[in-house]
Amino acid sequence: MSASDVTVVLDWGTSSFRAFLVDGNATLLDSSESAQGIQSVPAGEHARVLSDALKPWRGRHGALKIVAAGMIGSRNGWIEMPYVPAPATPIDLAAASRTIELPEGDRLTFVPGLTDRTAYPFPDVMRGEETQLVGFGLDRPATVVLPGTHSKWARIEDGAIQCFRTFVTGEVFATLANHSFLAKVATAPADHRSAAFREGVSLAMADGTEAGGLLTRLFAVRTGWLAGKVQPAEMKSRLSGLVVGWEFREARDTGWFRKGDKIAVVGDDDLVAVYTATAEFCDLSVEAAPADAAIRGALRISELARHPAE
Amino acid sequence: MSASDVTVVLDWGTSSFRAFLVDGNATLLDSSESAQGIQSVPAGEHARVLSDALKPWRGRHGALKIVAAGMIGSRNGWIEMPYVPAPATPIDLAAASRTIELPEGDRLTFVPGLTDRTAYPFPDVMRGEETQLVGFGLDRPATVVLPGTHSKWARIEDGAIQCFRTFVTGEVFATLANHSFLAKVATAPADHRSAAFREGVSLAMADGTEAGGLLTRLFAVRTGWLAGKVQPAEMKSRLSGLVVGWEFREARDTGWFRKGDKIAVVGDDDLVAVYTATAEFCDLSVEAAPADAAIRGALRISELARHPAE
Repeated sequence: MSASDVTVVLDWGTSSFRAFLVDGNATLLDSSESAQGIQSVPAGEHARVLSDALKPWRGRHGALKIVAAGMIGSRNGWIEMPYVPAPATPIDLAAASRTIELPEGDRLTFVPGLTDRTAYPFPDVMRGEETQLVGFGLDRPATVVLPGTHSKWARIEDGAIQCFRTFVTGEVFATLANHSFLAKVATAPADHRSAAFREGVSLAMADGTEAGGLLTRLFAVRTGWLAGKVQPAEMKSRLSGLVVGWEFREARDTGWFRKGDKIAVVGDDDLVAVYTATAEFCDLSVEAAPADAAIRGALRISELARHPAE
Repeated sequence: MSASDVTVVLDWGTSSFRAFLVDGNATLLDSSESAQGIQSVPAGEHARVLSDALKPWRGRHGALKIVAAGMIGSRNGWIEMPYVPAPATPIDLAAASRTIELPEGDRLTFVPGLTDRTAYPFPDVMRGEETQLVGFGLDRPATVVLPGTHSKWARIEDGAIQCFRTFVTGEVFATLANHSFLAKVATAPADHRSAAFREGVSLAMADGTEAGGLLTRLFAVRTGWLAGKVQPAEMKSRLSGLVVGWEFREARDTGWFRKGDKIAVVGDDDLVAVYTATAEFCDLSVEAAPADAAIRGALRISELARHPAE
């Protein structure tokens, strides 16, 4: 297989380095992984680190085509890429991408981020999720949730990513699970298949003022424990259900879905399972989505970047 | 002054020990402080630690009357005191208190906690704030906010604490300020006198769906920084205004106040200032409250416990 037939899709995040060697159909040929996240790479050393990591593939395939989306193109990454304003098509993203040539002859394409200027009070932003959305496919209307530290809800229509909003669900869950009073009492990680997780989602969705808002409902993880109704092993599951459920509640209240709608969930298997369980609890049907959306999207954008006429 | 004229009010919390020597009018005669919180006292050692700490006062005044509210009477404290159900009067609290005699002849009265069984899905609880409320005074209707890690809103009517709800505002602020992405970027502590704090409160109170719910608005601390509109030194002030403002929003939405109402804020000076600023932003007038409500309340409950006929 010659160099022109393979592409390296880079997932170079804050705390890990992952690279996927794929063919033109996004079939995975090989992968490589290390703990050398962008956080641990000194300025000016990115090219050398990448070159070393891809040496075996370069030996087999010659100079490589590489494409990178996400945090590697951020202020704390290698090159700070701009944010393309939504609505945006894959062609818009490709047009704003930037390709650099590396010392060994590899060509690296950075995908830009996406911004939604309708957000108040500041434009909302994503880096990486736009590529997952392209990989999911923009060929039919869809509401897509991309769970994570900063979870995104996005609307696809007319072949473009029309708009999106961020929910800091993962960050709120992690900081409370690891640093609040819970951290000292809880004895098990969250499990979205547990009754406690479903009770958390149910509490998030409960109407009426007796339960209060989010700041009051969060206290129920503690009062349930004090009342002997929530066991230490259930606390993180309950918190997870409550916080993810609250994301769905806020999404519903700000017009992202109505009961009975269909959504798609795109991301890592574990989080897709958590969000699918929550969506079904909220009477949503969940559309199947490819597990390799990030790779498919990166491949598509890099093809468009190289051949704008396609 | 004989032993019968003075009382020791104990504020023995998780991470600090404080004791106040007061006369029958709650006038402060002396105080004592150490870092020996209940967390660091082995089971069975509380009496000895307390005895050592109060030795100078015992020398001067003989065997002491001591009263303790709050976490020292919790599951992780010295003795686990029950929760009295609301509505509760000072007499109800005194009747459920418990007095033990210590080896040196001191008599220590533990104040019970308070529970509100109308909370959903589990009874809400407070420990210590019921004593502050008694010290604030239950002789006229009032809505009282007691800010803290677990902030309380309480309603006083007919000489009793009628009901209350907890908001985990302080815990959410602290965990996000110290452990989220903010912790790495922010360069200054929160300042409630800053424009950034007021902007945070304003964002919490903003209507319309463009801003999203709390999980989306929290992201604006980051997007404002990315957009160059929020400086690193302003980030914690903005977060503080947003989270405290959100507490007020949830309190308003669950019926705790309407525009133009009067509330009181009881607690430590710093937090009283933060909550007073927020209340005024929300068009509330703020009633003056005694700074020594905790001492006054403890004294009152211990007098009632010793002389139930009063």
